Amino acid sequence: MERGLFITFEGPDGSGKSTQVEYLREYFAEKGIPGVFTREPGGTEIGEKIRGIILDRHNAEMGDMTEALLYAASRAQHVEEKIRPALEQGMVVVCDRYVDSSVAYQGYGRNMGEQIREINRYAIQDCVPDLTFLIEIDPREGRKRIQAGDRDRMEKQALAFHRRVYRGYQQMAALEPQRFVVIDGTQDRETMRRQIRETVDKALSQRNII
Amino acid sequence: MERGLFITFEGPDGSGKSTQVEYLREYFAEKGIPGVFTREPGGTEIGEKIRGIILDRHNAEMGDMTEALLYAASRAQHVEEKIRPALEQGMVVVCDRYVDSSVAYQGYGRNMGEQIREINRYAIQDCVPDLTFLIEIDPREGRKRIQAGDRDRMEKQALAFHRRVYRGYQQMAALEPQRFVVIDGTQDRETMRRQIRETVDKALSQRNII
Repeated sequence: MERGLFITFEGPDGSGKSTQVEYLREYFAEKGIPGVFTREPGGTEIGEKIRGIILDRHNAEMGDMTEALLYAASRAQHVEEKIRPALEQGMVVVCDRYVDSSVAYQGYGRNMGEQIREINRYAIQDCVPDLTFLIEIDPREGRKRIQAGDRDRMEKQALAFHRRVYRGYQQMAALEPQRFVVIDGTQDRETMRRQIRETVDKALSQRNII
Repeated sequence: MERGLFITFEGPDGSGKSTQVEYLREYFAEKGIPGVFTREPGGTEIGEKIRGIILDRHNAEMGDMTEALLYAASRAQHVEEKIRPALEQGMVVVCDRYVDSSVAYQGYGRNMGEQIREINRYAIQDCVPDLTFLIEIDPREGRKRIQAGDRDRMEKQALAFHRRVYRGYQQMAALEPQRFVVIDGTQDRETMRRQIRETVDKALSQRNII
C-alpha cells in the first residue's frame, strides 16, 4: 500500500495542542505539503451526528459503554471515509485527538481499562498513527489555562480524574516510544512549534514527502 | 444476584417471530407473569436515536464497521437501561431480536466474522439470554411470506446473503444447544405457540417464577 504520514496530537485541554495543529497547518500551506487536517470527535457528517447523540447525554441515562461504542463508531467512520483514503493517496493526515484520547479519558480516566483499547482496535483496524505528539502539562496547570467558560465544565470532573488521564498518557508514551514524542507544554509556543516542526520534517523526509 | 429469565426470539423476517412474541405477551398477561417485552434495534430513547443514524445510511457513506459499532452502542444502552435492571428485579425479559441477530446478519451475512461477536461481548457484558427461540424457515420461504412492500427491501440483498444468515443461525444453534430451541417455522402458528409455551413454562418453573 502506498502510504502517506499519519500524525496525531494528544494532551489535555488547555495544553495548547490546537494552536500547534494550526501552526502545522500554516507550515504545510507555506511549503505546499499535501495535508488533510481533521479532528475528533467528529471529522465526518455521520461522526457529527453521532457526536450530537453523545452530547445529548445530559438529557438521558447514557451508559459509559454506550458512549465508548459511539465514539468508536464515529472513529470507524472517520478512518474509513477520510483518514485511510487520504493516506492511501500519499497525503499527510494531521488529526487533533484520536484513539489515544479514548484510551486516556475513558480507559484510564474512567477506569474502563483494556476494553477501550480493544473496542478501538475494531474501529481503527490497522490505521495507527506514525507519529503522536503528546503535549504534556500537569492537570493543575491545564486547568489554569483554559477559558473561564470551559473551566466550569472541567470542574465537574474531579481533579483525580484528570490525574488519571495524565498518568495514562505518560504510560502510553512510555509503552510506545517509537510513536510518541512528548512535548513539554510549559514551554513557550515558539519553542514547541520549533520542536514539532523539526520532528515532522524528519518524518516527512524519511517518507520522501519533502 | 437475584435474576429473572431472559428470553430472545431470533430468525429471518417473515418467520412469524413477532406473532409468537405477541402470543407470549398475551400468555404472560393472562397468567400475571411479570414480563418486560422489548425489541431490537431500539428499545430505549437513545437506542432509537442511534437507529435513526443507522437508517440515514442511504444518505451517506456509512461503513460496515461504523454500523456494527452503532448497533452495539444501542444494545449496550438497552442492556444497561432496560434489560439488566428488569432481570435484577426478577422479571422475565422477552426481546424480539438481540445479539444473535448481529452475529447472523453482520457476522455471517456480511462476512464480518468473529469481530461482530467480540464487539458485542463488550456491549452485553454477561447479559446472555437464558433461552433463545430460533424460528427457522428456508430463505426462499421467508421471502414469499413477507409483505409486498418489505419484499422490495429484501430483494436488494441477494438470496446468497440470506442463505449465509440462515446457515449462520443453524451453526449458532448447534454450538449452544443448551440455550437455543429451534422451532420449525413451516408449522402452523398454533403448533408453534404450543411448543414455545411448553418450553417457557418449563424454564419458568425451573426458576420458581410460576
